[in-house]
Amino acid sequence: MGEFELIRRHFVRPTRHTELGVGDDAALLRPRPGMELAISTDMLVSGTHFLPDVEPESLGWKALAVNVSDLAAMGAEPRWALLAASLPEADEAWVASFAQGFFACAEAFGVDVIGGDTTRGPLNLAPTILGEVPRGQALRRSGAHPGDEIWVSGAPGLAALGLAHLQGRTVLKQSSACIAALTRPQPRVALGLALRGIASAAIDVSDGLFADLGHILEESGCGAEIEDAALPWAPVLAATDDPELARTCLVAGGDDYELAFTAPPGKQADILALAQHLSLPLTRIGRIVPVGALKLLDDLGAQMAFGCTGYDHFG
Amino acid sequence: MGEFELIRRHFVRPTRHTELGVGDDAALLRPRPGMELAISTDMLVSGTHFLPDVEPESLGWKALAVNVSDLAAMGAEPRWALLAASLPEADEAWVASFAQGFFACAEAFGVDVIGGDTTRGPLNLAPTILGEVPRGQALRRSGAHPGDEIWVSGAPGLAALGLAHLQGRTVLKQSSACIAALTRPQPRVALGLALRGIASAAIDVSDGLFADLGHILEESGCGAEIEDAALPWAPVLAATDDPELARTCLVAGGDDYELAFTAPPGKQADILALAQHLSLPLTRIGRIVPVGALKLLDDLGAQMAFGCTGYDHFG
Repeated sequence: MGEFELIRRHFVRPTRHTELGVGDDAALLRPRPGMELAISTDMLVSGTHFLPDVEPESLGWKALAVNVSDLAAMGAEPRWALLAASLPEADEAWVASFAQGFFACAEAFGVDVIGGDTTRGPLNLAPTILGEVPRGQALRRSGAHPGDEIWVSGAPGLAALGLAHLQGRTVLKQSSACIAALTRPQPRVALGLALRGIASAAIDVSDGLFADLGHILEESGCGAEIEDAALPWAPVLAATDDPELARTCLVAGGDDYELAFTAPPGKQADILALAQHLSLPLTRIGRIVPVGALKLLDDLGAQMAFGCTGYDHFG
Repeated sequence: MGEFELIRRHFVRPTRHTELGVGDDAALLRPRPGMELAISTDMLVSGTHFLPDVEPESLGWKALAVNVSDLAAMGAEPRWALLAASLPEADEAWVASFAQGFFACAEAFGVDVIGGDTTRGPLNLAPTILGEVPRGQALRRSGAHPGDEIWVSGAPGLAALGLAHLQGRTVLKQSSACIAALTRPQPRVALGLALRGIASAAIDVSDGLFADLGHILEESGCGAEIEDAALPWAPVLAATDDPELARTCLVAGGDDYELAFTAPPGKQADILALAQHLSLPLTRIGRIVPVGALKLLDDLGAQMAFGCTGYDHFG
């Protein structure tokens, strides 16, 4: 089967809100009135972002989910996606399984798959996602102000702990939640949309909680104080017999795709109501201060040391 | 130097018509009123689409130019681009030179570079381009009708001949025009914009003239008759001492990024005026017929055989 037939069979599915999808030189779409477009692209490389023997359906889900997460962090509604991919061979079973995961994520988040490119080469996936956000309402990294409180959704670290388990760096008695966080991340789209008008800044936790908070601080020109006692420890992290690893997963593990955000103190009640409405823990972990880097404080307010803060692909 | 600093230094430049560019979870843009968005993504792999030792500035130009060409083929005005890239190492001189070529193309075509992703891995480039076209006026592959005439811009085959020269499959006395066509293709944006309201269908010649015309026929549900004597032979192709190679370059060589398009016979005068206005040869090479595949006809109207018709990455 040729390239075009392989693509057509697995990647051309009906669209719901698109003028022209796969099959022409470009796709055509019409943003709704009053909307800005948010757009992001990622590149996932075999051996760097996923293991070469990863289950293709999970990889398909995750390849799109990490992009959907970027829109969640902007408060944008995911609407369209494209996928450029290079594959070492035309293995139809692999492509079919990958497409099943990719489209499962697309359908879960209302995304039309409208175009892409397929070629031969080392396994590499480059999805592009587009979404809509009412003009001027996007959540930017640059909006944090001194006095704002710092929040994080869920319990970061599960995916990093799952990876450590798969790599034999620790042995979990109960690994399924961690493996699921790693292989089938759930981007926080509903949270991102609900945070419009509430959050002053937001980012998705892909590089690690402290590293990603660092991006907010840099763009906003502020510092931060994080209360160590306030960090949300997932029970499975608290229960591990390697507390140092667990701590690193919590503050520096990426790949959970939780949202970290800031909001004025007056929004606390709104945020707690939102947590209840979404059945998603939202935890206040610190506050924005005028200057300085990210500081971690113990119960007495004294500064604590912490190790690695994130992942720099060329660091 | 870390990844973020490397990107910042070379890929963050001022934008001219963008709400929010590089540096957040997603970029933000506002299409102009009455406009549809056209969007396309490509993937260029070292060893498949370019030679590993390619000059990085040329590669930068070409990586964006092939995407700009997709918009030209839709009659869309290029406006924004993103670039996902994986690089084997953080070689700053290489990145600087690549960025120079990429931004030279962006500036030549009025494109704001608004986002992307950089990671480590085998050399791979996945640009995404966005442009605008007035609603309903895009040039689609599906619009050709029986009786329409088939046109092509320029003289296809130069880039393929240049590649044959570089690979030692032929020796050109005058190679500079062919090398330039290969390394610094000029997407036909002005032509694509001018063909709105004139062309019934259009495509850019990236896979080869006959293969790409085949895509129009397939999407339009038509056949075509090409007059062999009407094919535009570039002087350098006509002068080569390997006429078979030259012919293959002309009908099956991709990478020139000329436009092939169809138009009703009544538009002939408009098209010839356009050729003069743009100083770009536009050649009528055949016509659309109701059914059948692409046929090549000799002077007497008899069908001729022709060999390879294009490039299928998994064929």
